[in-house]
Amino acid sequence: MKNAAIVGGTGYGALELIRLLHTHTEIKLVKVISHSQDGMAISSVYPHLKSMEDIALEILEIPALLQGIDIIFFATPAGIAKNIIPELADSEIQCIDLSGDLRLSSQEQYKAWYKAEAANEGLLDTAVYGLSEINRSQIKEAKILSNPGCFPTAALLGLIPALQHEHIHTEGIIIDGKTGVSGAGKTPSVRTHFPETNDNLTPYKIGEHQHIPEIDQYLSEHSNVAVHATLTTHLVPMTRGIVCTMYGRLTDQQATERLIEEYQHFYEKDRFVRVLNEREFPSTKGVYGSNFCDIGLHVDTRTNQLIIISAIDNLMKGAAGQAIQNVNIMNGWDERKGLNHIPMYP
Amino acid sequence: MKNAAIVGGTGYGALELIRLLHTHTEIKLVKVISHSQDGMAISSVYPHLKSMEDIALEILEIPALLQGIDIIFFATPAGIAKNIIPELADSEIQCIDLSGDLRLSSQEQYKAWYKAEAANEGLLDTAVYGLSEINRSQIKEAKILSNPGCFPTAALLGLIPALQHEHIHTEGIIIDGKTGVSGAGKTPSVRTHFPETNDNLTPYKIGEHQHIPEIDQYLSEHSNVAVHATLTTHLVPMTRGIVCTMYGRLTDQQATERLIEEYQHFYEKDRFVRVLNEREFPSTKGVYGSNFCDIGLHVDTRTNQLIIISAIDNLMKGAAGQAIQNVNIMNGWDERKGLNHIPMYP
Amino acid sequence: MKNAAIVGGTGYGALELIRLLHTHTEIKLVKVISHSQDGMAISSVYPHLKSMEDIALEILEIPALLQGIDIIFFATPAGIAKNIIPELADSEIQCIDLSGDLRLSSQEQYKAWYKAEAANEGLLDTAVYGLSEINRSQIKEAKILSNPGCFPTAALLGLIPALQHEHIHTEGIIIDGKTGVSGAGKTPSVRTHFPETNDNLTPYKIGEHQHIPEIDQYLSEHSNVAVHATLTTHLVPMTRGIVCTMYGRLTDQQATERLIEEYQHFYEKDRFVRVLNEREFPSTKGVYGSNFCDIGLHVDTRTNQLIIISAIDNLMKGAAGQAIQNVNIMNGWDERKGLNHIPMYP
Amino acid sequence: MKNAAIVGGTGYGALELIRLLHTHTEIKLVKVISHSQDGMAISSVYPHLKSMEDIALEILEIPALLQGIDIIFFATPAGIAKNIIPELADSEIQCIDLSGDLRLSSQEQYKAWYKAEAANEGLLDTAVYGLSEINRSQIKEAKILSNPGCFPTAALLGLIPALQHEHIHTEGIIIDGKTGVSGAGKTPSVRTHFPETNDNLTPYKIGEHQHIPEIDQYLSEHSNVAVHATLTTHLVPMTRGIVCTMYGRLTDQQATERLIEEYQHFYEKDRFVRVLNEREFPSTKGVYGSNFCDIGLHVDTRTNQLIIISAIDNLMKGAAGQAIQNVNIMNGWDERKGLNHIPMYP
Repeated sequence: MKNAAIVGGTGYGALELIRLLHTHTEIKLVKVISHSQDGMAISSVYPHLKSMEDIALEILEIPALLQGIDIIFFATPAGIAKNIIPELADSEIQCIDLSGDLRLSSQEQYKAWYKAEAANEGLLDTAVYGLSEINRSQIKEAKILSNPGCFPTAALLGLIPALQHEHIHTEGIIIDGKTGVSGAGKTPSVRTHFPETNDNLTPYKIGEHQHIPEIDQYLSEHSNVAVHATLTTHLVPMTRGIVCTMYGRLTDQQATERLIEEYQHFYEKDRFVRVLNEREFPSTKGVYGSNFCDIGLHVDTRTNQLIIISAIDNLMKGAAGQAIQNVNIMNGWDERKGLNHIPMYP
Repeated sequence: MKNAAIVGGTGYGALELIRLLHTHTEIKLVKVISHSQDGMAISSVYPHLKSMEDIALEILEIPALLQGIDIIFFATPAGIAKNIIPELADSEIQCIDLSGDLRLSSQEQYKAWYKAEAANEGLLDTAVYGLSEINRSQIKEAKILSNPGCFPTAALLGLIPALQHEHIHTEGIIIDGKTGVSGAGKTPSVRTHFPETNDNLTPYKIGEHQHIPEIDQYLSEHSNVAVHATLTTHLVPMTRGIVCTMYGRLTDQQATERLIEEYQHFYEKDRFVRVLNEREFPSTKGVYGSNFCDIGLHVDTRTNQLIIISAIDNLMKGAAGQAIQNVNIMNGWDERKGLNHIPMYP
Repeated sequence: MKNAAIVGGTGYGALELIRLLHTHTEIKLVKVISHSQDGMAISSVYPHLKSMEDIALEILEIPALLQGIDIIFFATPAGIAKNIIPELADSEIQCIDLSGDLRLSSQEQYKAWYKAEAANEGLLDTAVYGLSEINRSQIKEAKILSNPGCFPTAALLGLIPALQHEHIHTEGIIIDGKTGVSGAGKTPSVRTHFPETNDNLTPYKIGEHQHIPEIDQYLSEHSNVAVHATLTTHLVPMTRGIVCTMYGRLTDQQATERLIEEYQHFYEKDRFVRVLNEREFPSTKGVYGSNFCDIGLHVDTRTNQLIIISAIDNLMKGAAGQAIQNVNIMNGWDERKGLNHIPMYP
Repeated sequence: MKNAAIVGGTGYGALELIRLLHTHTEIKLVKVISHSQDGMAISSVYPHLKSMEDIALEILEIPALLQGIDIIFFATPAGIAKNIIPELADSEIQCIDLSGDLRLSSQEQYKAWYKAEAANEGLLDTAVYGLSEINRSQIKEAKILSNPGCFPTAALLGLIPALQHEHIHTEGIIIDGKTGVSGAGKTPSVRTHFPETNDNLTPYKIGEHQHIPEIDQYLSEHSNVAVHATLTTHLVPMTRGIVCTMYGRLTDQQATERLIEEYQHFYEKDRFVRVLNEREFPSTKGVYGSNFCDIGLHVDTRTNQLIIISAIDNLMKGAAGQAIQNVNIMNGWDERKGLNHIPMYP
């Protein structure tokens, strides 16, 4: 039994971690850090936790973390984890960063897209990118894990098999992303005010989304050239869920059926990736509250485009779920520990 | 380990049972009956089940049920369970009926409100009403269990303590019910067509809801006179959840705080009823996907009304969750088996 | 042609006034006051207005209002109009206050419920309460009009005929209100953050809503005793619309049909109140974007309760629509000017 | 004043026509045809019309249409209008077909995509495609008008200026479409059942949508080669609205600002197309209930893609609104007659 702490305890990522750890048989949650609500019982901040989780929120104190904590989840905004993790360098603590701090290997790219100072190079070199199905062997050895962004998770799991097999051209890849509003976090804003968002579909951060360089970097890793993909993002009036609809020009004629077989083979040992049958396409409700990434494929023979559609729950496979999956891998546990839920349907 | 079957396998109640049984350590689901989809894998009908539950749907055959099945859940429309259960009378099978067939002790009332023939009297006498927190001792001894309706569950758990303590008059009780659309079941209709229901609030079945006599019968059992309460029901543009806002004229002056203490005492051993603090009121999201019934209280001193507000997930505490809770009681297991989830939030 | 100004130009009430005035043939909108966005074109703040309304927002200057403005709408939060209107006392300007400042005749009640200083008594005496169908003759003579609150509009139009005819007891009246989220205004908050509100139903301000004394005051005016009704309010995941479900104990046996006839007679000259037929009940979508108040009635013979259900669009009959209707009455125009829309359906 | 009839009177397209004609000063609606509800008052079928429109529904009789009707709107499913219009050939009646019957010039294409017999060639040759802004001069002379599909309207208005100026390659154009559920029509189905659609995003008809050949045909007309674009469609949990996010590879380096100027010039006389400023992108709520098509542009310099985003209300500019606009053009009236609404916001 390992002891875990969560830093950034009042965001949606933290709440989802708490929900998952509640049924995890190898991890005990012993500490939740939230500066803004120091001293309060978490169930008084979040009534849905009443009688389930009564831990008191506290402020961050490094020495307290160093004593008795084995795993720390950083469910913090960008800019926090990169400053705290170095202070834990001498310990054996496993650090899981759910923010974007450690995802980009280039400090310049981080500065350009996050408009802030990047983590130091040593830290960036040490961190392992936790796209579980793709990087499993490195994750096993990781002490500092950088958990992928929500759009990159959905996009990369959908594109990497086709890229590795060189079925699509590396140029001109389009990723049209649609997300539920919980992806915008817990802080109210005009854009997420119910009367503005309900019954509305809104494109946002066109050309500016910080997940763009993350996708490019890892697509490039699985290709023999530098890949620059186009990502757009749209806010959908739903709470959870991401669908990425992706388009790549085929390098050769392909039958949908054969590509599906190839994808099924690619992911055959992965319990959380489900490649759907021909003419089936994933929806967000099909993965709601679960750690699944569902993938559907279609060859548009009229235009020689490969259409790949992936769906995840942004708070699960796109954040807390994948974080737990990665911790399971890092500790040699069954990957499904704490994650073995049937999606909530309807 | 006991073997369970579900009859009526393609409705929302059955789906929720499947979701819950997946993590229940004492029950194995071995049979799902669905006449309309005999032979199909359930995951081909419900893609969200893919890789989680691949059982094949089959038609009902009594002899097959009699061999090897210990528990049968009837997640069927009204009118089915009352005809099948008598055929299992000689067996030891535990029958849990989620329909309304066995809820009303009076055959006349059933005919009047369900517009159909009632179950035979012997069956009605044998069946135990499964309002878990209130009838626990009878449920322990039950073989045939009648699972309560969704509105009655929310209404009775909210009203019974006040009635038993004679804090409110038995006359003039008002129950204003609001429900998510999954309560209307899986079959599409004009009333549940998305463009009609979205961004809309609709009263329905005013004066005609079949849960009215069920509420009256069990309120009367906990009072010394026959109680006739007014129930109205409203369709709310959300998938899951019920809130009942209830009004009773106080028999005497009361402080909100004291009544809350009394309710907390009344439910102190009940893991699934949470009585909220003063000035806290329950919302459906606070219990989403869980078996909780949250209750808030307020004395309106201006009008001498006691306002009781209860919230449940209609598919959980209002159907499948309470059914599992009852099976746990019937078999002497921890009531939380298969139900120990933190509500899905947000 | 009269010239109008709107003070408080960036809230939802102001936006709805702008939408309605666009097709009003007797009123020209010439000024929109918004301190926070002085100098900006309103269409740059609200892109949906692009090419339709390009007026520049400006700060409040009394002398500018006194020159050339005939009608001022105050679509401001409570506490603003009561300070500005006295400065216009010597002019002929018609003032329509959509806030609560002038609705309560008692300064003590205002202080108790609004937690702020009340308007001066002279102003309160002069202001006419603009419940159009009920107070039409006084409205015709009004110069300062206090536009009713959204819940009071729905509740009073539903209850007054029954009270005037003494069909229901004045004691124990229950008003269970459900509202869309636009009623909470334009300012983002945790309670109106999309992930918190979507797929959720939340009771709020139980026992504390500032519309309670407003309802009591005007119910009392139409009764021969002081009436204290119970109002509860619930936030529903929809943008617009209010349903009030109301319960009153009948003083005598009554048939639903006869009461409907009486209501139809009561409102027979009113173009914006539609009394529905037996077994029809109003929904918010049935009045979406229109100035209608739809009313359905049902006598619950089991409990001798009269159930009255009314539905309005909170931004229309509950705010801007009724304000325009009142201006039409004040100026002797057809009441439907600017309001002759078929509800938006679906 | 001209007399109009609507055939197919109980669908959403017809309802929207009724709403618009109510304020149209040159057209009087005198007949609504609905076989399934012959004899009923339309307001008893659609309560929102009560007191606004009480016309009785009737069955189709050609002789009755030939007497006194000047304009007929066909708001029918595919396969109806093509059989009725020929019977009206000798009259002066203006026929507006909102279905897909007359949109494809190739009978083979119609058969392939609609799985039904095509209209006869004479009729196809006579019908004018009513994309108002693009085909205005032909529409002026039309007697039989084929009203465009909803996705084609949004896609073509967004793409045609870029194609005509040869800014993008004709190969590899991607149109990622997102639509509200009213686009699926009035008939309930599993896909549009509220609990399935709410809080869900679902791709549908991938590679099979009947709007694909319509888009190709009219893109090709505005290019010097045959264009084959990729269209995908996604069901979004909202009632109204379409957003098309479109991607075309630039033929040359371009600045966003310059392309916006070009688009603004292209549409400078069009009251219903609004080209947004740089870094502004359209949302469905910005056009809700109105006839606007809003267009935003962005050059993705990293990938040399032009991103074009257009938004319409599918029942307005995507159906009934454009139909009225076309009738206005055909009759030489101001294009805004019956359409001069500010979008409903919020």
